[in-house]
Amino acid sequence: MSAALDAAPGRELPVLAVVGVGLIGGSFAAALRRAGKVGKVIGAGRSRDALVRAKGLGLIDEAVALEDAARQADIIVLATPVGAIPAILSRLLPFLKPDALLTDVGSTKADVVKAARSALGDRSECFVPGHPIAGAEKTGPEAASADLFVGRTVVLTPLEENTEQCRTLAIDLWKACGARVVLMEPDAHDAALASVSHVPHFLASVFMAQVSGADDADLRLSLAGSGFRDFTRISAGSAEMWQDIFMANRDAVLQELKAFRALLEQTESALAQGDARELHELLERAAVARRFWGSRSGHE
Amino acid sequence: MSAALDAAPGRELPVLAVVGVGLIGGSFAAALRRAGKVGKVIGAGRSRDALVRAKGLGLIDEAVALEDAARQADIIVLATPVGAIPAILSRLLPFLKPDALLTDVGSTKADVVKAARSALGDRSECFVPGHPIAGAEKTGPEAASADLFVGRTVVLTPLEENTEQCRTLAIDLWKACGARVVLMEPDAHDAALASVSHVPHFLASVFMAQVSGADDADLRLSLAGSGFRDFTRISAGSAEMWQDIFMANRDAVLQELKAFRALLEQTESALAQGDARELHELLERAAVARRFWGSRSGHE
Repeated sequence: MSAALDAAPGRELPVLAVVGVGLIGGSFAAALRRAGKVGKVIGAGRSRDALVRAKGLGLIDEAVALEDAARQADIIVLATPVGAIPAILSRLLPFLKPDALLTDVGSTKADVVKAARSALGDRSECFVPGHPIAGAEKTGPEAASADLFVGRTVVLTPLEENTEQCRTLAIDLWKACGARVVLMEPDAHDAALASVSHVPHFLASVFMAQVSGADDADLRLSLAGSGFRDFTRISAGSAEMWQDIFMANRDAVLQELKAFRALLEQTESALAQGDARELHELLERAAVARRFWGSRSGHE
Repeated sequence: MSAALDAAPGRELPVLAVVGVGLIGGSFAAALRRAGKVGKVIGAGRSRDALVRAKGLGLIDEAVALEDAARQADIIVLATPVGAIPAILSRLLPFLKPDALLTDVGSTKADVVKAARSALGDRSECFVPGHPIAGAEKTGPEAASADLFVGRTVVLTPLEENTEQCRTLAIDLWKACGARVVLMEPDAHDAALASVSHVPHFLASVFMAQVSGADDADLRLSLAGSGFRDFTRISAGSAEMWQDIFMANRDAVLQELKAFRALLEQTESALAQGDARELHELLERAAVARRFWGSRSGHE
């Protein structure tokens, strides 16, 4: 039995390694520590500064090199931009403990699955891909919280080669963080997220670029209110991270954009023709759907 | 000198009539009452229920018919949907006091100016159109607050025929509510608002309709998070009100949608061609502009 699974009294708690100690990685560590699921927490990653701050905040006990993280850890979570995952896995592989569980928190899954299989070979049997749907608007270890995942959805896309032990442990850990765990196929995850996450970001960014690129941008922006604030908020996110997401999930995003643009053009035509009835029908349909989602999801 | 301008001690305070006692009308009344700018406040409007609630909340002293509102009021604010303004003005006109100030709070201005001139004739000299940029996400008299306009922008688009007295009083009243008053031409207001308010609502509504109309809408919506929540929030607004706004400001909205769609198609092409550099450049431009706006506007 793996050390990671065995958290019984009298036995040592598993060591957690967080690669990328930002909001998500830091929160995962804090939540698992609070739940008593992990003992020592070590951090690794590109940003020395983030590691120092994470240690100062008590999110990790120690900052180590990637290779040392692999040598020590029973559980490894990759909380870096998706584009960095293949190289990290290749560096970890030679040093992994026999039963170590690997997981990630990336916003796309099919590309991560492909990268994991390619980088890990047989060891992909203990890589369980994940995506917590939480908290993209804040960043950095300072924003981390043991409560971040409470009541939130975490999608796991287990691989067919995953051992039952790794699969069960990954589910158990996320549930211990307070999350609602949903199991999906990677492609289905990517298609759904293209629709409800990636396309909104794409549209908000294009809109923000269009407005701020206008000759009279200063005047326009001085008259922008709370609707503008909410609609554009996501466009302030990291360009690096979102470029990775769009490139990784390109086909699904393009397909959704196409569907959106078809309805946009149809609705524009209705407006151009002064078809108030069709316009109203769409606005009402959207309003009803949004109010229903808001009440059902617990979001405002 | 008009009664409305003269709020000196020993003289009676002006009577304010609010037509449409919802969030905006109710907040205007509460703010002016707190500032000591008005005495008696009377309410009128289509919704008897809202009038009863507004009276219960102390926002108005009395609910009256439109004609009585005109007979008694020194200041009349129209806080109804824009589409209702022409008919209301026609009903008020025969009963207006000689120096009564009229203003509105509609989201579009060129159409209101046209309607006011047509309905009021010579009396348009005391109609000063306005648009407070505040609080569209809540509705009803219960949401009204004397603080709603504090630090918010209110656009006034005075008419060339406005008397100096009416123009000055309108500015004074909004400043007394704590607002930053900006004077603009109606067309310039409508063009700017098409960009930063109407187009975001149009896009959010089309997006929400597209997602909720998909075969697997339930699955998609179960995976939607805080980015989706913010991006779509405005689409929950009143279909009636927004239909009026889009129809009233149709040309400016269509022009902005065209500019948006051009950049959308260009960015889609960059993604389709895998041009990560161009994609990154746009995302970074949007992120920088949004962060700058957020810090400068006091919005998150």
